[in-house]
Amino acid sequence: MKIGMIGLGRMGRNMADRIKGAGHGVVGYDLSPESGRDVDSLEALVKALDAPRAIWVMVPAGKPIEETIDRLHDLLEPGDLVIDGGNTRFTQDQEHAKRLAERGIGLVDVGTSNGIWGKEKGYALMAGGSDEDYQRILPILEALKPEGENGLVHAGGIGAGHYVKMVHNGIEYGMMQALAEGYAIMQASPLVKNPDAVAASWREGSVIKSWLLDLMVKALQEDPGLEHIAGKADESGEAKWMVQDALELGVPVPVTTASLYARQDSQIDDPVTMKVVSALRAEFGGHPIAKE
Amino acid sequence: MKIGMIGLGRMGRNMADRIKGAGHGVVGYDLSPESGRDVDSLEALVKALDAPRAIWVMVPAGKPIEETIDRLHDLLEPGDLVIDGGNTRFTQDQEHAKRLAERGIGLVDVGTSNGIWGKEKGYALMAGGSDEDYQRILPILEALKPEGENGLVHAGGIGAGHYVKMVHNGIEYGMMQALAEGYAIMQASPLVKNPDAVAASWREGSVIKSWLLDLMVKALQEDPGLEHIAGKADESGEAKWMVQDALELGVPVPVTTASLYARQDSQIDDPVTMKVVSALRAEFGGHPIAKE
Amino acid sequence: MKIGMIGLGRMGRNMADRIKGAGHGVVGYDLSPESGRDVDSLEALVKALDAPRAIWVMVPAGKPIEETIDRLHDLLEPGDLVIDGGNTRFTQDQEHAKRLAERGIGLVDVGTSNGIWGKEKGYALMAGGSDEDYQRILPILEALKPEGENGLVHAGGIGAGHYVKMVHNGIEYGMMQALAEGYAIMQASPLVKNPDAVAASWREGSVIKSWLLDLMVKALQEDPGLEHIAGKADESGEAKWMVQDALELGVPVPVTTASLYARQDSQIDDPVTMKVVSALRAEFGGHPIAKE
Amino acid sequence: MKIGMIGLGRMGRNMADRIKGAGHGVVGYDLSPESGRDVDSLEALVKALDAPRAIWVMVPAGKPIEETIDRLHDLLEPGDLVIDGGNTRFTQDQEHAKRLAERGIGLVDVGTSNGIWGKEKGYALMAGGSDEDYQRILPILEALKPEGENGLVHAGGIGAGHYVKMVHNGIEYGMMQALAEGYAIMQASPLVKNPDAVAASWREGSVIKSWLLDLMVKALQEDPGLEHIAGKADESGEAKWMVQDALELGVPVPVTTASLYARQDSQIDDPVTMKVVSALRAEFGGHPIAKE
Repeated sequence: MKIGMIGLGRMGRNMADRIKGAGHGVVGYDLSPESGRDVDSLEALVKALDAPRAIWVMVPAGKPIEETIDRLHDLLEPGDLVIDGGNTRFTQDQEHAKRLAERGIGLVDVGTSNGIWGKEKGYALMAGGSDEDYQRILPILEALKPEGENGLVHAGGIGAGHYVKMVHNGIEYGMMQALAEGYAIMQASPLVKNPDAVAASWREGSVIKSWLLDLMVKALQEDPGLEHIAGKADESGEAKWMVQDALELGVPVPVTTASLYARQDSQIDDPVTMKVVSALRAEFGGHPIAKE
Repeated sequence: MKIGMIGLGRMGRNMADRIKGAGHGVVGYDLSPESGRDVDSLEALVKALDAPRAIWVMVPAGKPIEETIDRLHDLLEPGDLVIDGGNTRFTQDQEHAKRLAERGIGLVDVGTSNGIWGKEKGYALMAGGSDEDYQRILPILEALKPEGENGLVHAGGIGAGHYVKMVHNGIEYGMMQALAEGYAIMQASPLVKNPDAVAASWREGSVIKSWLLDLMVKALQEDPGLEHIAGKADESGEAKWMVQDALELGVPVPVTTASLYARQDSQIDDPVTMKVVSALRAEFGGHPIAKE
Repeated sequence: MKIGMIGLGRMGRNMADRIKGAGHGVVGYDLSPESGRDVDSLEALVKALDAPRAIWVMVPAGKPIEETIDRLHDLLEPGDLVIDGGNTRFTQDQEHAKRLAERGIGLVDVGTSNGIWGKEKGYALMAGGSDEDYQRILPILEALKPEGENGLVHAGGIGAGHYVKMVHNGIEYGMMQALAEGYAIMQASPLVKNPDAVAASWREGSVIKSWLLDLMVKALQEDPGLEHIAGKADESGEAKWMVQDALELGVPVPVTTASLYARQDSQIDDPVTMKVVSALRAEFGGHPIAKE
Repeated sequence: MKIGMIGLGRMGRNMADRIKGAGHGVVGYDLSPESGRDVDSLEALVKALDAPRAIWVMVPAGKPIEETIDRLHDLLEPGDLVIDGGNTRFTQDQEHAKRLAERGIGLVDVGTSNGIWGKEKGYALMAGGSDEDYQRILPILEALKPEGENGLVHAGGIGAGHYVKMVHNGIEYGMMQALAEGYAIMQASPLVKNPDAVAASWREGSVIKSWLLDLMVKALQEDPGLEHIAGKADESGEAKWMVQDALELGVPVPVTTASLYARQDSQIDDPVTMKVVSALRAEFGGHPIAKE
């Protein structure tokens, strides 16, 4: 099978290589001439593929995916298929599908996990779309997934792939924060001699053994006590979308929410909430107030 | 009635004045010669009062109250009564009472609210101890409380006064944080023209009208947008004790806890939890990491 | 001034009465013939008013307000003005305004507070819209608001009225939950003799004195210990919308969120999350598992 | 090496078997005659071992461990060593050590993980105590731990073993709740066709691959949709102690706390907090109230 690949950043390049490694053809395009692209325009990409085409898009959520969908809407033909492998919000998938369907173009949304480890070990893939479209790209999905029976699921209709990837990331936020809280209290407690060694010991025989624990131990080996890392963490959107949808569904997700708030807090230098609390304490109790 | 007052800081001085204003006698003692104390030692304080004595102690929780209880244990006589008007943890009250009872000395614990406003408007008082001891100091409690039927309660046995004051303060934390979150989102939203004016409008006809709202509006009038106040708030212990006891009782108190955590977060410059999360994101996703 | 009023339920009826009490004219319409309506159709309502008209709409959010906006879009004339006094989500206001503007009709969104107490004491009003439209309906707003300088604010452009009412309600959620947690721990603690009396005592001289505390005491007087009330609480939407927007703005609102989750939890009989936790505990620890 | 084992329930029995499997001797005692005990009294256990003795205690926290420590205090000789392998609170370890030291008896506290899987795969062990005592029992610890370099740590002085086991369990709570929230939202969303299949797919190539995920998938295979499991989960104490100590240390642990509260909530049928909220909504808004 031969597909197009739009976006040859770290993720797209690695995925293209893994697909080619499985014996398929890939025509790659990227905005940047330094990307090692095979063609230098979307028009050329479309020409380089025989109809019906399948084009995997691996570009950032937001404006880049919106623009790419718009361009493909104009350039592709009825019967062609777009695979969005990025982190698009599931609500957008449904709009993209509607727009592409105006011209008879299909869409499959695929959530992918495993980051920089996927090229070698395979990517966990979660796909949304019709059974027919899913079957059509199955050879590519099989090439990308890890060995074994797991690592690939057809999660539901349009949007379901990105939806369950969003949920996966929400779980990831909670697990990371759980590990972080445990490590932080060990570092603060005078009782614990060597928190890094304790974390390492948990890698076998414990209930919390996990890849994230392994990675935490690796990070602690590279930088004991994490002394050289700043206490700030970004958020990437998925946990936020998950909480917003959970609110609609009436499913309380306090751990996902708390994990997200912890990251947001770490990005705020001078929280307005604490200005209010500090001002109130001064008003009723004469408590001293820090001035800026 | 004539009582002793130990601790003539802002709170103790104001309370002594209010008690004297109601026609009672107060002999004041403080460690500091600049306090305007009536006597210059605890021994002199004890001598200046006729048995059976009642001595109101208004010193900080922790070491100061521990030392004062120890000294009074030695200096007072059977039948005397100690009133602890400070912010002692309720679990300590029970130890203090046991210790004083060895020498036949009684204890009443009194939680007091209203901070710097109490001298003029009266203090909300919450007392713990026996009915007999409560009745004995009722004239003083009546002098300190606000006008009207509310503002004074005999909450239960030893420790109950500080317990319900602790609960009062836990509620206070939650209410303050609720106001703070509402103000913060208004300041962040491009839709809201003047958050300070909105807050002021709520003072009448709204469901959230409250003294804390009044104080927030006062603070906003003094410093519009709270631009000159740092986004850091201290915690004073009571909410922490409340959460710890709620955990024992199996009563979830998520709002009190979240309010406390928000203050603790504001005191931490470089949270270890976020170091862990940031390190993990770099390990699995190659996300950039801020170095210190 | 003479206005139309659509929706003569408890809120609309009381507001119409208060407006009339201030000397203005009100033509009332409601779907129900039993409502005491002045006219029996929207067409008749429009005819009963001289252009340029101002019509206050007091119907539930969701389908009722959508249908009413649609009908008024068709029936009204350029220069007329719709006032949405309900609990519409602020994002909808902007769509309604755009739709009405197609025919030259204006919109002011007004958040109102004070529930069943408003008829007598006045309603806190928060308005969104242009300065011109706000000035035009100011006589009506003045009639509805409480006495004194507070209780009315022009919060910003279209949507700002409902936005700050949403924030008001979010704060209300947090304050209520704070009071609830304090009361619950007092009822659970063996130390506290009479939680209802403690709550009553806080009405004067305490930092947490507030209308909500007064109402809690009133409820406790009507039903000591709240023994006859079920431990379930509904949510009305505003806190949910506030959390969703706070997530977009990157402003953590943990107390508002926790208050909302507590209500959602109370509506769920058999939480799936706890099924998972219970199943996991059985898998790794052989912990007993409750079967359904 | 030959040791005593007190407590031959599921955990103690399995551990004794694993120790014997490594070529050591174990003299087992349990209160129950049906336990397959080797001796029928603590006195007989002590006699059956040569001084200096090492006795592993595997009894529940609370009264059972308190009584066992008391008995061993009286029966053992100077130079003997008690190993507490249960879930004792770390603060109690320090009291136990002090008490045993009065008679020259040592203590090592050992947190153990892996539940019913440990007999075959080994137990993760976290020990607290002096270097000398730790070295003395190292052969036994080596017999119990899993194969490989991980699974055993000397975490610090007395109490440190149970402390880091407590932290391990706190992390476990957070991870379980994170998985639970993710599964629950997938079950609630109309987009996701088969949540069980999605969870299974995550076992390979995903960031959240972990033993707990494996166990969740196993549970879902045994009972698809977890339809036959009640939505209630117990708590075992460790997360509670962790939150209480985190509060003392000033380290916010919102995810651990939220996980614990979710379990506590699931045990409460008729929460007082929601009675208060419901009563307040009725007072100010006339909202309907469910009666009991």
